[in-house]
Amino acid sequence: VAEAIGTLRVRGAPLIGIAAAMGLVAGLRGCRALPREAFLDRVRALAEQLAATRPTAVNLRWALTRMLAAAAAAAGPAPAIWERLRAEATAIWEEDREMCRRIGVHGVDLVPDGATVLTHCNAGALATGGTGTALAPVYAAHAAGRRLHVFVCETRPVLQGARLTAWELGRAGVACTVIVDGAAAPLLRSGDVDVVLVGADRIAANGDVANKIGTYALAVLAAHHRLPFYVAAPWSTVDLDTPDGGAIPIEERGDEEVVTIAGQRIAPVGVPARYPAFDVTPAALVTAIVTERGVVRAPHGEGLAALARAG
Amino acid sequence: VAEAIGTLRVRGAPLIGIAAAMGLVAGLRGCRALPREAFLDRVRALAEQLAATRPTAVNLRWALTRMLAAAAAAAGPAPAIWERLRAEATAIWEEDREMCRRIGVHGVDLVPDGATVLTHCNAGALATGGTGTALAPVYAAHAAGRRLHVFVCETRPVLQGARLTAWELGRAGVACTVIVDGAAAPLLRSGDVDVVLVGADRIAANGDVANKIGTYALAVLAAHHRLPFYVAAPWSTVDLDTPDGGAIPIEERGDEEVVTIAGQRIAPVGVPARYPAFDVTPAALVTAIVTERGVVRAPHGEGLAALARAG
Repeated sequence: VAEAIGTLRVRGAPLIGIAAAMGLVAGLRGCRALPREAFLDRVRALAEQLAATRPTAVNLRWALTRMLAAAAAAAGPAPAIWERLRAEATAIWEEDREMCRRIGVHGVDLVPDGATVLTHCNAGALATGGTGTALAPVYAAHAAGRRLHVFVCETRPVLQGARLTAWELGRAGVACTVIVDGAAAPLLRSGDVDVVLVGADRIAANGDVANKIGTYALAVLAAHHRLPFYVAAPWSTVDLDTPDGGAIPIEERGDEEVVTIAGQRIAPVGVPARYPAFDVTPAALVTAIVTERGVVRAPHGEGLAALARAG
Repeated sequence: VAEAIGTLRVRGAPLIGIAAAMGLVAGLRGCRALPREAFLDRVRALAEQLAATRPTAVNLRWALTRMLAAAAAAAGPAPAIWERLRAEATAIWEEDREMCRRIGVHGVDLVPDGATVLTHCNAGALATGGTGTALAPVYAAHAAGRRLHVFVCETRPVLQGARLTAWELGRAGVACTVIVDGAAAPLLRSGDVDVVLVGADRIAANGDVANKIGTYALAVLAAHHRLPFYVAAPWSTVDLDTPDGGAIPIEERGDEEVVTIAGQRIAPVGVPARYPAFDVTPAALVTAIVTERGVVRAPHGEGLAALARAG
């Protein structure tokens, strides 16, 4: 499991947390004959190994901290602790599925019957323990029998749209079409798209949204064509300690990911490239933010604060 | 040469015309001992072979028609006709270089000292017999000693930006950085770009511009960030018989080019994709159109008509 997380075979913040918790349980299965203290030592060692795979992944640390607390609080010998950890990992998964389900409930009416949706990147079933975050409203609408079509931006450079979103939508029976990112604009102009729907990596207190590079362009284009631009994301991405998007640090990744595709070089050697992995969309361009706690519209800051108080 | 044109190793409308004319001369070099009529038969046969390589390329047919007319008008035996063809091919090339040079002259002041330019696709030296069309103002500014930086959109799906524009700018000593197409928007927002400069495949009588897919998004984004959006293209792309962009047919190419890169599949098998090769930018978003005949600003239709009358 550690290898799978480290090599990005498991990705998506929620799924990384679930996988780490489940991986801890799986790794401890063969240690149940150990004395209690030796077993707890093993819990800590494996948790450290799992945590080291992606040092900046917040959900990874959160899930493992929760597992360690469960182990420390569990009474009895190793098999009892192990059962407690298995229950905790299952609870993490179940809570994530419930989060996805509730985003779907709150977001389903943003995707009416006959709608054509444009989306970016992957925040779907492949990134969570349930139906996804950005895609949860799509799956909820599909489950309600609504006829949908989803245009999927391929999402250069890592192609999460073409590789992941198109795969999982097709598997779920949702009609979809992949386009290059630059083809979204004429599609929005054509009148063939009703709704733009994306996820979020972090949402600031004022409603500014950091998400995969390419998102901000879609927000500007949606506004230009007077189309709704929706963000659907777990409440855990709402960071009320960050006042606005300007305070969100944007990870600049290696230019290798721009000039190579699947290990194959696509630009001449020596050509400099830049790869900001995320961009920030100002709240003014966001029609609504959907989380498992409810839907927020402008003024986004007040709506987010109200949901935070409601808990 | 026919093989090189057919397999797109030579591309770019102007360069295709030049290569076909030069190819005809090269192919006839060994035929100069033939009698006049047999030589002229050979001219027609080779011209047909070259014309068949890309049936819809306007410049290809235009250059070969001009070469056939020169051959028919030439007096004397085969060596004299061949010399006439060599002169005609050289003239086609020289006229193209002059076209590029004049676009540079008219466009150079759109690229002031210290400017950062954002461009898309390739309409540079690799597409013409000279310094290019869209890139001619950049090369002219560079030759004038101005300090420049060019951000190059990679231009999915065929990656002309990453593969061609970045290569030729680097070779010419112009500093450049490749970005994925979706990264242009935050860059325009950052204030780090002064000018967006692209080419054109066809310009309608009202100034609407058809160009490589991804161009329209840049035009909307430039307008949103109050940045100038310039089109630099040869006068031959101005089509006064097409009233506006709605009348320009947009080629839909095979989805293979979206779901594969350099022969490698990037999306799961069976995923549907769409690839409109071009998009249309309304004249209202175009700050100025630069051709070898001069610069046109709004109202674009009147400016184009005036340049047409001036001849």
